[in-house]
Amino acid sequence: MVGDQYLLLPGPTPIPDRVKRAMSKPMINHRGMEFRIMLEYIIEELKAIHKTKGDIAIFPASGTGGLEAAIVNFVSPGDKVLSISSGVFGDRWAEIAENFGAQVERVDFPWGQSVDPQIIKEKLIKDTNANIKAILVTQNETSTGIYNDLKSIGEAIGSHPALLMVDAISGLATIDMDMDDWNLDVVISGSQKAFMIPPGIAIMAYNKKALAAHANCSGPRFYWDLTAVRKYLEKGQTSVTPPISLYFGLEEALIMFKEEGLENIISRHRNYRDIVRCAIKALGLELMAADHCASPTVTAVFAPPDIGANKIREMMYKDFNIVLAGGQQNLDNKIFRFGHLGYVRELDLVASIAALEITLSRVGYPVNLGHSVSKALECLKENIT
Amino acid sequence: MVGDQYLLLPGPTPIPDRVKRAMSKPMINHRGMEFRIMLEYIIEELKAIHKTKGDIAIFPASGTGGLEAAIVNFVSPGDKVLSISSGVFGDRWAEIAENFGAQVERVDFPWGQSVDPQIIKEKLIKDTNANIKAILVTQNETSTGIYNDLKSIGEAIGSHPALLMVDAISGLATIDMDMDDWNLDVVISGSQKAFMIPPGIAIMAYNKKALAAHANCSGPRFYWDLTAVRKYLEKGQTSVTPPISLYFGLEEALIMFKEEGLENIISRHRNYRDIVRCAIKALGLELMAADHCASPTVTAVFAPPDIGANKIREMMYKDFNIVLAGGQQNLDNKIFRFGHLGYVRELDLVASIAALEITLSRVGYPVNLGHSVSKALECLKENIT
Repeated sequence: MVGDQYLLLPGPTPIPDRVKRAMSKPMINHRGMEFRIMLEYIIEELKAIHKTKGDIAIFPASGTGGLEAAIVNFVSPGDKVLSISSGVFGDRWAEIAENFGAQVERVDFPWGQSVDPQIIKEKLIKDTNANIKAILVTQNETSTGIYNDLKSIGEAIGSHPALLMVDAISGLATIDMDMDDWNLDVVISGSQKAFMIPPGIAIMAYNKKALAAHANCSGPRFYWDLTAVRKYLEKGQTSVTPPISLYFGLEEALIMFKEEGLENIISRHRNYRDIVRCAIKALGLELMAADHCASPTVTAVFAPPDIGANKIREMMYKDFNIVLAGGQQNLDNKIFRFGHLGYVRELDLVASIAALEITLSRVGYPVNLGHSVSKALECLKENIT
Repeated sequence: MVGDQYLLLPGPTPIPDRVKRAMSKPMINHRGMEFRIMLEYIIEELKAIHKTKGDIAIFPASGTGGLEAAIVNFVSPGDKVLSISSGVFGDRWAEIAENFGAQVERVDFPWGQSVDPQIIKEKLIKDTNANIKAILVTQNETSTGIYNDLKSIGEAIGSHPALLMVDAISGLATIDMDMDDWNLDVVISGSQKAFMIPPGIAIMAYNKKALAAHANCSGPRFYWDLTAVRKYLEKGQTSVTPPISLYFGLEEALIMFKEEGLENIISRHRNYRDIVRCAIKALGLELMAADHCASPTVTAVFAPPDIGANKIREMMYKDFNIVLAGGQQNLDNKIFRFGHLGYVRELDLVASIAALEITLSRVGYPVNLGHSVSKALECLKENIT
């Protein structure tokens, strides 16, 4: 089929035209006043989105770089770290900490489930000497389509002095989050998610408690060094050359954020999720995440085993120019994932459900054409405000 | 003055319109076939530019990230490293190696001079047990405007087993280089230089000898890990999310490279240098680099001390919308730097010389208006082929 691709991934997301135009502006001197004004604007807006009075560091990197930055700036080799995971990205963060010499205790929850704050609480109660220096959690586990309740996790940690470090790469600004009120010490995010710009920028928000830990941290670093970031920021500069075109895009995206309003962005993503999930249920397919922890940015769906997820993805791509994500690692060919993150139109989700109906029907799965679409429309109708 | 800015920095450089348009293409799945085809094309073209049969790794990062990647992939903590420096960027690479635990012996040459391969040779002759594992050199020292003769440095190393690792960030594709023939083992570059695209991509070329060193390297890493890069590359993917818009730009820039031809690009940069230097000499200002090692991408000029470099830069910016770089560290206010790198027109350099004449004249420096411009024109006339 002709026409633009439907890019339904949990990042990168479609890019708004005005962001593309902003990214096409001529280069500027990244050590000059124009850049400084832009950088300071971006940082203030990012603080507002995080709901923090803490600080922001921006790295030329993918989100994974932001996770590495958090480890080398706040965790010293030998430090004990509690890593809470229920998927690929939770595991990745544990692995980064291990590679940099942390003593990582992994607390794993079944894939497709959110983490249980009570278990974290019990672990910390036993840590009477406060040996645990940091707790790594994932806000939104893209590999399985669940999100974790950061507020409860913050409460479970209570007065334990460990830093609570959050991978919010695919969740920030799509799920309610109050960094200061919920005692989140470090929060990592990336540009190609809710920010609607291409990959290449990692963002790290951190508070005073994290900064105090940084002062005594012996993690090996140069590129990610927060001390250098802070020194240059005083001059309105970055410690390494910034990806200027992506900064232009981020600046424009943040203006769009302000126009729409953070609460509206969060409820828009909730609506995406609800549209997709009610349609998938109507199709009789199994969802990986339970309702109470279902991610607003990505929905993982078990394919009928006799068909396989990759066959469905291939047909959706070939016949309708719809790009869905596959399953990672053990989930390959078992699940397909609808990304509904960033600059996505509700009606494109409805169209994709329609395409899924046709696709499933063509490979012999029993489908009542139009039925799941009608459920999606009912859900969409409810959600129009 | 109205009109586009003259951006005369040693990076970022002006971006060609067709590169901007390429960067505006819609996002694609970075785990899909479209990306794979682009990645494989880019890597083949990059190999040709390096003149290597070795391999290429691409990181979402500024050039400094590429330097860190080289250290953590090829140098283990405790390894002895020889760092050859005559400026800010040479020093930076030594510092990165030190931060990651290498035992760095610094061999410093005066700023504004190229390094003497004979001294490197003598150091290596004394290293009879081959304790030195790597030698760090800078191809083009942006802070002072000199370049080093990598061929002679390669010859000076001879059969010593140390890896020769080159920071070619601001020099690649503007100075003759034959990676395989000259025994360069690791070569780092960045997107915002000769490649004429915005910052955000670091490139690391490496050969089999480097890969063998990597196999035994205990440098702490995750984000930069070459083993992961190579594993994903087999599937036509990157180990972390790639900055897709910059890849689109790089692909287009590499097509432009092929159209112009590498030899022509190198001679174009040599012409830039010659135009600027003959005009500066005609103005009676002192150049930081001697003729034999003068960089083709950036020219550092001593300002008359009673005027100061920053005053000149401010006036050039305010009156003519020309952006020049300043001096770094101890050179602040002493030198200004003409960047002539990437997508620059020769006549823009002539125009900037004209603006410099007027600026100097207005602050009381004796200028025969038009004299240095005429010298620049004579040089330009010579160089038209």
